[in-house]
Amino acid sequence: MEENKDQSKSALKKAEKAAQMAAKKAEKAAKQATLPVVGGKKADDIIGITVKKSENFSQWYQEVVLKAELIEYYTEISGFFIMRPATMYIWNVIRKWFQEHIDELGVEETNFPMFLSQKSLEKEKEHVEGFAPELAWVTKAGDKDLEVPVAVRPTSEAVMYPYYAKWIRSHRDLPFRLNQWNSVVRWEAKQTTPFLRAREFMWQEGHTAHLTEQAAGEEVLQILEFYAGVYEQLLAVPVVRGRKTEAEKFAGGYYTTTVEGYIPSNGRGIQGATSHCLGQNFSKMFDITVEDPAEKGKHIHVWQNSWGLSTRVIGVMVMIHGDDKGLVLPPRIAKIQSILIPVGLTAKMSAEEKDAHMKKVDELLATLKKAGVRADVDTREGYTPAWKFNDWELKGVPLRIEFGPKDAAKDVVSYARRDTGEKGTIPIAELTTKVPELLETIQQDMYNKAEVSFREHRLKIEKWDDVVPALDAKNVVLIPHCLVPECEDKIKELTTGRSDEAAEGPESQKAPSMGMKSLCIPFEQPEGLVKGETKCLNPECSRLAEQWCMFGRSY
Amino acid sequence: MEENKDQSKSALKKAEKAAQMAAKKAEKAAKQATLPVVGGKKADDIIGITVKKSENFSQWYQEVVLKAELIEYYTEISGFFIMRPATMYIWNVIRKWFQEHIDELGVEETNFPMFLSQKSLEKEKEHVEGFAPELAWVTKAGDKDLEVPVAVRPTSEAVMYPYYAKWIRSHRDLPFRLNQWNSVVRWEAKQTTPFLRAREFMWQEGHTAHLTEQAAGEEVLQILEFYAGVYEQLLAVPVVRGRKTEAEKFAGGYYTTTVEGYIPSNGRGIQGATSHCLGQNFSKMFDITVEDPAEKGKHIHVWQNSWGLSTRVIGVMVMIHGDDKGLVLPPRIAKIQSILIPVGLTAKMSAEEKDAHMKKVDELLATLKKAGVRADVDTREGYTPAWKFNDWELKGVPLRIEFGPKDAAKDVVSYARRDTGEKGTIPIAELTTKVPELLETIQQDMYNKAEVSFREHRLKIEKWDDVVPALDAKNVVLIPHCLVPECEDKIKELTTGRSDEAAEGPESQKAPSMGMKSLCIPFEQPEGLVKGETKCLNPECSRLAEQWCMFGRSY
Repeated sequence: MEENKDQSKSALKKAEKAAQMAAKKAEKAAKQATLPVVGGKKADDIIGITVKKSENFSQWYQEVVLKAELIEYYTEISGFFIMRPATMYIWNVIRKWFQEHIDELGVEETNFPMFLSQKSLEKEKEHVEGFAPELAWVTKAGDKDLEVPVAVRPTSEAVMYPYYAKWIRSHRDLPFRLNQWNSVVRWEAKQTTPFLRAREFMWQEGHTAHLTEQAAGEEVLQILEFYAGVYEQLLAVPVVRGRKTEAEKFAGGYYTTTVEGYIPSNGRGIQGATSHCLGQNFSKMFDITVEDPAEKGKHIHVWQNSWGLSTRVIGVMVMIHGDDKGLVLPPRIAKIQSILIPVGLTAKMSAEEKDAHMKKVDELLATLKKAGVRADVDTREGYTPAWKFNDWELKGVPLRIEFGPKDAAKDVVSYARRDTGEKGTIPIAELTTKVPELLETIQQDMYNKAEVSFREHRLKIEKWDDVVPALDAKNVVLIPHCLVPECEDKIKELTTGRSDEAAEGPESQKAPSMGMKSLCIPFEQPEGLVKGETKCLNPECSRLAEQWCMFGRSY
Repeated sequence: MEENKDQSKSALKKAEKAAQMAAKKAEKAAKQATLPVVGGKKADDIIGITVKKSENFSQWYQEVVLKAELIEYYTEISGFFIMRPATMYIWNVIRKWFQEHIDELGVEETNFPMFLSQKSLEKEKEHVEGFAPELAWVTKAGDKDLEVPVAVRPTSEAVMYPYYAKWIRSHRDLPFRLNQWNSVVRWEAKQTTPFLRAREFMWQEGHTAHLTEQAAGEEVLQILEFYAGVYEQLLAVPVVRGRKTEAEKFAGGYYTTTVEGYIPSNGRGIQGATSHCLGQNFSKMFDITVEDPAEKGKHIHVWQNSWGLSTRVIGVMVMIHGDDKGLVLPPRIAKIQSILIPVGLTAKMSAEEKDAHMKKVDELLATLKKAGVRADVDTREGYTPAWKFNDWELKGVPLRIEFGPKDAAKDVVSYARRDTGEKGTIPIAELTTKVPELLETIQQDMYNKAEVSFREHRLKIEKWDDVVPALDAKNVVLIPHCLVPECEDKIKELTTGRSDEAAEGPESQKAPSMGMKSLCIPFEQPEGLVKGETKCLNPECSRLAEQWCMFGRSY
């Protein structure tokens, strides 16, 4: 779950500041209360997204997560975000789905303290080095200094494993599997971004122990498949499954598997979630052993895994599906799947006519709910239908259903899909079948669109000179690679700033462009790499290629 | 949710230390591995509870929560506890039940950062004074000092309310209700006890805003009733609903309502959960206003509530229902409601006979599960049925079902109730109806027993001289009281150490006895208090009594 390292975040930083400043200004203005008030709401409520996704992606993102009320900046302490109800709904859908899957595996829930001691932290050296710069240290309680400072967990290996040594007594206790849902703190020095990189984030962390490498390895992949399921089945986000290179694996682990996503707007790869095999590294440090069932008296160190999925998934989903009007939610994770909006109620209509129409609206809502659709109705007074359309589009509701006297006369409802904007009508008699079908179609179409986009921008490259142009055209690349860490460093160096030097056309960027790093070694390998023959693509590397490796600019 | 203050915890402290030492010793011994090994398990696994509940209640409690695998001491940092799967199961049942109830009220979920700034903390003076001595301060990140230290939340009023000022724009936004499930840190200097008092504990905290005092007040009681439901309906624990006195209310709040429990073993009261009306204190400090719907241009401060329920509930349940054999779980919150144990499989039986019997056991298990019973079977080899009985009794499983060849011959199963020890048989044909019925009976009987015990030990006292003897006889008392804080202090003083001075009989305690404090003003008031006539019971108080107030020695 280590989030990866970038260089030129200054543009993002500026955009975030601008968004914050704008929000503050608007808030201040609204507080002064002499501004136009629409139906009891103050002015900044009706401001939609002010930039195009294609023109200023980072500002667009900041605005969407803020205005769709997914998050709020915690201005008291920088780098922290408040998760609002819209976010918690999505996270709870994911949590429930994932929990059901790990329940079936027999994983049990636990809750460990949030603090860890220096002593247990220091047991695994590589691990502590990976996290030390980001540890938040509690040194005082009340006005007294603590005798020994304690750190807030950045992840819980060092918190939990001393107890695994105590609890795992026999090979009969294996597999031993615990999971916890909590938040962890990594005091990033770098620029933070809502969901993607924050100083505190919510996640689940699973920690398991197995008798054999094989048993551990099987679970690593089962969990990875659940993570892929969260992205693909719930969030309509395609991912590539693979293994991290040595350079990018978890600090102190044996190997790391990952699901990797792709952000079309800037062509960057993004780590989705990771499932690690820790091997016997930690079990040796923390002395977690069982008697070998095959050989009495012989003690073996258990094989361990750890795996985590964070609220980052929500950020990826927003970036992929959102558009210039705001958030676009896949129906399966939308709290409101369909919003019903009464329209065409003119001033000429009598109170009785209006009441009769609203009664029909209530019936439609009841029908939708009965059909299992998470539906709601917008009866707010003092707002025009157009204002309401914008508001629900901003918030990403997948399906808008309009119902006016003209619809009533024809026994239909009118609808508009959030993802495509497509409009149409549905006979009221068919509401209970057609609306669920339509929601399922939206879910599938959203996935398919993102899948095509990722597939078409994952280029198999066999000439080094094609690499940077491919990156500049917003692709990630698959290249034959030797998998040696130093070579990765060199590749990053060779690809940093290149487009700037070479660029002349209108697509050139002013800032030096980001170098590429390895995203994963996909399990699904392309054809064409001949072992012992194909060379590593890095022109300054003389080694042979081991596998196709996916590289890209990335988050 | 402030946990209340005691004096003489030295006995408890000693007992806890003794339990920890014993556990450590046993662990060490087991690790040396030359100890008797039973079926792959090491020696300390088969040690049950070593003290009687009636003889050494605190050690009994420490042992039960440890050996029934509810918690583990976090020896790395004192005052912290690990919540094991048995605890998390119970907490999740409670969480789901409570969540469903607040969902119906329209409360939404949120997640705020765990840190709060000095600045926002200082806004409400009484509040900060209440929590300041227990705040854990983060002063360093990595090896750098933070410019401004941040505190881990002890509760989230000061974290959340700056945002309420931003989000609540109009009276149409009211009621505004958010809840979060998290853990909070209160660095207690006092002795900690698993579940009851820990430096970090899990809870939910609801924070709501209303237009009027009345609307806020209604919700305070709705939530309090949910808390009572958690105790009474899920945990089979009776509680008294009431209001805290001024002396005992939440720091900075307007008034506090509470559900109060009773621990028969030592006659102490224990605060169960609290639902506070904060009045307008915080909304004035944090400037949370809306325009008065009744008067344009006039701004009014909202009325706020906060309410919390913590894992303390589990500790109360353990103390009330547990016995000398260990934990006793009410069926509704038991992960395993019924454990099926094959018995009577003698060495003389053929492998075929054994297989045939075990096949029947599997069928019984399937039948129980199909009937909605959370059942499991203990097929561990190398353990005697008697060992298994003890093990499941220690862990509190409500119903044991035994099945041997003799039972099979009669088409029955034999059972033993955990709560009463009562034994009997059930025809296999009636399993699907009788077992759920029996579980429900157990739930009710456990509640009834505890209810009688609390009722009989809640004495209405009208003579001061009867107070201390009542406390010594493990009662809590209802007395006419003036409700003035200074009088409460005096009462505490007057009742401290009294039993020690007067005691001569065999029931006297060596340690000076704890003074009593007010637990609540019960909503259900006894008869016999004449306003303007009945005097406060405190002999040194000259005021008139306002209400019957429940006092007791307490946690």
